[in-house]
Amino acid sequence: MAEDQLDVAPEPENAESDAYALDPKTISAILYTVEVQDRERLVELMEPLHAADIADMLEQMNAYDRMRLIRLYDLEFDGEILTELDESIREEVIQILKPEVLADAVRELDSDDVVDLLEDLEDAQRDSILEALEDSDRVAVEQSLTYPEYSAGRLMQREVVMAPEHWSVGEAIDHMRANEDLPDQFYHIILVDPRLKPVGKVALGKLMSSRREVKLADITDTSFHIIPATRAEADVAYAFNQYHLISAPVVDENERLVGVITIDDAMLVLEEENEEDILRLAGVGEESSLSDTAIQTTRQRFPWLAVNLATAILASLVIAQFEGAIAQVTALAVLMPIVASMGGNAGTQSLTVAVRALATRDLTGSNAVRVIRREATVGLIMGVAFAVVMGIVGVVWFGSTQLGWVIFAAMIINMVAAALAGIGIPILLEKIKVDPALASGTFVTTVTDVVGFFAFLGLASLVLL
Amino acid sequence: MAEDQLDVAPEPENAESDAYALDPKTISAILYTVEVQDRERLVELMEPLHAADIADMLEQMNAYDRMRLIRLYDLEFDGEILTELDESIREEVIQILKPEVLADAVRELDSDDVVDLLEDLEDAQRDSILEALEDSDRVAVEQSLTYPEYSAGRLMQREVVMAPEHWSVGEAIDHMRANEDLPDQFYHIILVDPRLKPVGKVALGKLMSSRREVKLADITDTSFHIIPATRAEADVAYAFNQYHLISAPVVDENERLVGVITIDDAMLVLEEENEEDILRLAGVGEESSLSDTAIQTTRQRFPWLAVNLATAILASLVIAQFEGAIAQVTALAVLMPIVASMGGNAGTQSLTVAVRALATRDLTGSNAVRVIRREATVGLIMGVAFAVVMGIVGVVWFGSTQLGWVIFAAMIINMVAAALAGIGIPILLEKIKVDPALASGTFVTTVTDVVGFFAFLGLASLVLL
Repeated sequence: MAEDQLDVAPEPENAESDAYALDPKTISAILYTVEVQDRERLVELMEPLHAADIADMLEQMNAYDRMRLIRLYDLEFDGEILTELDESIREEVIQILKPEVLADAVRELDSDDVVDLLEDLEDAQRDSILEALEDSDRVAVEQSLTYPEYSAGRLMQREVVMAPEHWSVGEAIDHMRANEDLPDQFYHIILVDPRLKPVGKVALGKLMSSRREVKLADITDTSFHIIPATRAEADVAYAFNQYHLISAPVVDENERLVGVITIDDAMLVLEEENEEDILRLAGVGEESSLSDTAIQTTRQRFPWLAVNLATAILASLVIAQFEGAIAQVTALAVLMPIVASMGGNAGTQSLTVAVRALATRDLTGSNAVRVIRREATVGLIMGVAFAVVMGIVGVVWFGSTQLGWVIFAAMIINMVAAALAGIGIPILLEKIKVDPALASGTFVTTVTDVVGFFAFLGLASLVLL
Repeated sequence: MAEDQLDVAPEPENAESDAYALDPKTISAILYTVEVQDRERLVELMEPLHAADIADMLEQMNAYDRMRLIRLYDLEFDGEILTELDESIREEVIQILKPEVLADAVRELDSDDVVDLLEDLEDAQRDSILEALEDSDRVAVEQSLTYPEYSAGRLMQREVVMAPEHWSVGEAIDHMRANEDLPDQFYHIILVDPRLKPVGKVALGKLMSSRREVKLADITDTSFHIIPATRAEADVAYAFNQYHLISAPVVDENERLVGVITIDDAMLVLEEENEEDILRLAGVGEESSLSDTAIQTTRQRFPWLAVNLATAILASLVIAQFEGAIAQVTALAVLMPIVASMGGNAGTQSLTVAVRALATRDLTGSNAVRVIRREATVGLIMGVAFAVVMGIVGVVWFGSTQLGWVIFAAMIINMVAAALAGIGIPILLEKIKVDPALASGTFVTTVTDVVGFFAFLGLASLVLL
């Protein structure tokens, strides 16, 4: 291993020298086979690649190359690639695939992956995929689709390995040996009572290391979580993360076992939630993807900037009240953006911490008061510190002690306001059940701009004129 | 299930009505037992709680209650709770625990959890924990600690289930039955050659469903990733996420199997990476925790605000060049923050998308040019759109067509500059191996402030005076 692989930050250089990841040379070679229509070589080059990497590669190339590659690759196209693709590209790819290739591709997939595929498709595409499935799979998929979007029912796979609670280890193993249709990945056997209600789960490792005559009921995991099919997927992801679950049974409203969710599904949801929070905080539509066109991107971002324009005009209206003062003392115009900018940044700090803590459920009713008090204290301390600096800058730069005092006071007021807005607005939004991440910079900086300009220019009018 | 559990956003109300999560009533009851020093009832109330929930509860209470609770709970204190605690609280808790309780607690843990514990402790505490371990465990832990921080070697557990590549299913099962010291959680058997080099892995589910005489080598997983012990943990997390790994073998520099990393470790790293990105983008030290004191918090955030102050003063220097113009046309002072604010927000949008895409490795050499072109186009489209709006606002509000044209042009210039800075700065930082998330709002808004003020006030001086 090269020395620089010890670095903390993720390094793309590592990824490129990394045996797993996509190598730019491979991509060039693949694009060349498309150029010269050399199907045999294309298949040879793609063969060792993981579906996730092929999907990334398809996302990163332009639409024309993508189409030609898929047409050339033809029957080799694997269902896994579809599940790994970004939604925005997936629809396009499905339209390029021949019906028989598509049918082949989806038939290999687990039911949860098919459900995930179908969710974002238009009716015509959806029907053609459903028709391609075998009858039993189609029924399973259609049942999953009856659960609401973003629920555990959509996330689960129907393929479950279960055993009656009175079985022994030997019976379970014999049963599994006889069963040809086990899922690709499973880590636990779910124990059920005669009504199919899950009563426990046995880790395969535990099963392996126990004698044949041991009862399954005697070697169940101590931690056991049952997930109702209607539970929000965000809550499911939280449970997996909090309790380090690998898989969990899903039950319907009669508490009957209907499926199982595995950690890879939960990890995906967690990643999506994180993505959403980051993008929302920055005022970017959370559906954004790198492969979106400029028009799609503009459409996502425009509304946020429009809101920002409205709030910026609001702040300007405050300034307009003090035009007279500014005409007399132009130093005010020079210094006022500093007050606003410091407040805006301090507010964003508090805001981000609050939004994160709400998302990870670390900020709750039992510590909210303490955290608000802390943020206010921090705002006050930093306000005083920067007020001293700016007071001195004001005096030195413009030679006016009075101006120094004005900016000193305005800075403290704005920093405390920033802290309170930063922590208060997300908590308030959470209370009224709006995603706190929507309290993006825009709203908090409106407060800090308005308070900052008003405090600074208002005090200046009182003291200087 | 209640209807409102179907909502998309994570709802704390759900969490509270959720059977898994911490119930405020339970917390009150527990605090009451601490108040009246009722140990028996405390143990009874804590018994059903998951270690992760106990850790959350400890983090959310104040230091005095925390100390009293831990003292009362005494010998019941579980090692798992320590691993779940936030670093900032963990040290405090370890100091409260009696030496014999601490020794008991750490002895139950897997080696990777002990390593994680030790990393953040001071030497004295570290030594007392190492002494508490059994000899074989201590050696394992000390060996892990020889690997660099944030490397796979620190993340892995030493407890591995392996088998020679020539074994059959029956031999593997018999071996496991005879072995009393299997790890708590394992999902694969790693096949090794005579030099202990991993050559494949067999999923337990596959093992279970195969006949005893089948060779392990014939039922290995198709996807198999070997991780060098020196690989950065961020790269490990990426591989787990990208390839949906559940566990992966870790090898030393001689390619000998030394440990195994499981998905729960990788998930933790992924969460930390996300946290870091969000906090860095907002200019908050990534070590921040909700249980930090006001002083600690101030210390984390102060440097970022100090940098911001410097850049804000820079922007003010630009304004100062145009004091004369502002004195004549105070409308300039009223409108200039709008130009700056729109640029700042547009820049933050581009920046956030770029930082995310770099972190998830979706933005690479093969699509960078396309993405930069897209961002510039988006900046231009939105610039023109908002320029029209602001041009009209300028004309209507201040009755000056010339002012309208000035703000129109300045808006377009600043929005394009914002887009280019937002995408360009993180790509540049990534190139020179600095974490792009450090290109927090501060740097991009410096560009947009300076460009915005200069374009607006400069054009105004040319046109209006």
